[in-house]
Amino acid sequence: MSEQNPAPVTVIGLGPMGRALAGAFLDAGHRTIVWNRTPGKDHGLVERGAISAASPEAAVAESPLTVVCVVNYDAADAIVRRAPVIDALKGRTMVNLTADTPDRARATAIWAAEHGIDYLDGAIMTPTPTIGTPDSVLLHSGPEELYQAHKPTLDALGGTQTYLGEDVGRAAAFDIALLDIFWTAMAGFAHALALAQAEGITARELAPFAVGIAEILPPLFQQHAADVDAENYFDETNPITSAASSMAHIVHVSEAHGIDASVMRAAEGLARRVIGLGHGTDGFLRITQLLNSR
Amino acid sequence: MSEQNPAPVTVIGLGPMGRALAGAFLDAGHRTIVWNRTPGKDHGLVERGAISAASPEAAVAESPLTVVCVVNYDAADAIVRRAPVIDALKGRTMVNLTADTPDRARATAIWAAEHGIDYLDGAIMTPTPTIGTPDSVLLHSGPEELYQAHKPTLDALGGTQTYLGEDVGRAAAFDIALLDIFWTAMAGFAHALALAQAEGITARELAPFAVGIAEILPPLFQQHAADVDAENYFDETNPITSAASSMAHIVHVSEAHGIDASVMRAAEGLARRVIGLGHGTDGFLRITQLLNSR
Repeated sequence: MSEQNPAPVTVIGLGPMGRALAGAFLDAGHRTIVWNRTPGKDHGLVERGAISAASPEAAVAESPLTVVCVVNYDAADAIVRRAPVIDALKGRTMVNLTADTPDRARATAIWAAEHGIDYLDGAIMTPTPTIGTPDSVLLHSGPEELYQAHKPTLDALGGTQTYLGEDVGRAAAFDIALLDIFWTAMAGFAHALALAQAEGITARELAPFAVGIAEILPPLFQQHAADVDAENYFDETNPITSAASSMAHIVHVSEAHGIDASVMRAAEGLARRVIGLGHGTDGFLRITQLLNSR
Repeated sequence: MSEQNPAPVTVIGLGPMGRALAGAFLDAGHRTIVWNRTPGKDHGLVERGAISAASPEAAVAESPLTVVCVVNYDAADAIVRRAPVIDALKGRTMVNLTADTPDRARATAIWAAEHGIDYLDGAIMTPTPTIGTPDSVLLHSGPEELYQAHKPTLDALGGTQTYLGEDVGRAAAFDIALLDIFWTAMAGFAHALALAQAEGITARELAPFAVGIAEILPPLFQQHAADVDAENYFDETNPITSAASSMAHIVHVSEAHGIDASVMRAAEGLARRVIGLGHGTDGFLRITQLLNSR
């Protein structure tokens, strides 16, 4: 598996991400075997040297490492939890880069162990064009020895690849938490554009200032993370009462324009609960403790 | 009002932000008159040369420009909509940097015009420590001539100050839209930390990756803004069906840990409505059009 003589690798699933993965393996000189449930998706890859397998079991049998990247674990299970594929996977390694929940990753690891399949789980944090470039970010979890053994092959995917530990669900847990930030922020952005439009402001007029807002988040995230770990929520300068007041303005202006404000209403509700519990002089991040206060 | 001989300026409201504003005016050499509803908040400012007025009308009478920065327009009205203050403001300029809704700004401009008071409205987009530094961001709206006349004084607040136009509600409209992005993103971050904790991940372990997520937002905001203005929502590579699937995973994992997922449920609800209307192959930003589709 040295870089001089790259190991063969199998890619199951040729959606946009699976195709990007296969392309990166090809670019790095790996013999790359591909298979997709619906045929015709290997177009372009075969021209670049990929070997199109006739079945998933045939694809798996051609290499020591199978990377699975399909829409979710139901789709992955439908492919790999069949006797011929299980037989082919036995003694080989499967890396599941399909996005799903930590529990599904853990359940798949148990299934794999029962069938003598070595199993790693991972998450891809950046869009398809980043794969194989320095900009990709991938997370991995599962047995460390197994990860190290296949790292030379996985390195072809480029960028920053972080091994998060032996708990096989950890990559999916990071993935879910990070997607939580991403999709909530995108919901805020989509809503802000609607609000701006209703006020006669174009998206492009708002964009430079929206970028300014995004740029203040990284240092705030760092600072709040340290505070949350230390359970240090007091924030006299930016109390949650003042956040709740801003949030109420946003709801009010939205609804005055007939714009659904359900996302902000839910967020304001969390802030109001913190205040109602007597923590109005704490900062907004007190919500984290509220959410985990079972 | 040249920088050689700075004009006097009055600051009404000495909360953390009002104190920062007064401090920046003092640093720039302006004779600065201050007043706050509850006394004792001028401590520190008077030592730096500020003049503490006995009443808001006395404060207003000492300068051509009064900057108001209090908790909301109800608080501002309670101070300025009294006969002695109205008399003192007549023929002078009031700049309201208090955060509230565009409609309140517009109503205040009408009230000001009825009383012969020149009125500008503004919004402060960055935290108190930035005031008077290159990092501050302020937005202004109202009569352009008036803004230009007082710009030499307002320049003491530093940073990037943008004049947005004659509609006096425009600064507040930008403010509300940008706070919408900010507080929604912060709600996502606070929730992600709770989810991470429940999965045994500390805030500081998640933080570097959370920063990575924040860093991909600026180029996405720019791109999506152009697409939304062009009503170009189609996004085959990142369809809203795939966003909705991620969102469902986040709700599922949250609730399996007993963590309230009301914010993500609301956001997913918007995505599901877009899909239900037959736009599942469009990107997530189709939500903006859904929200404005009255």
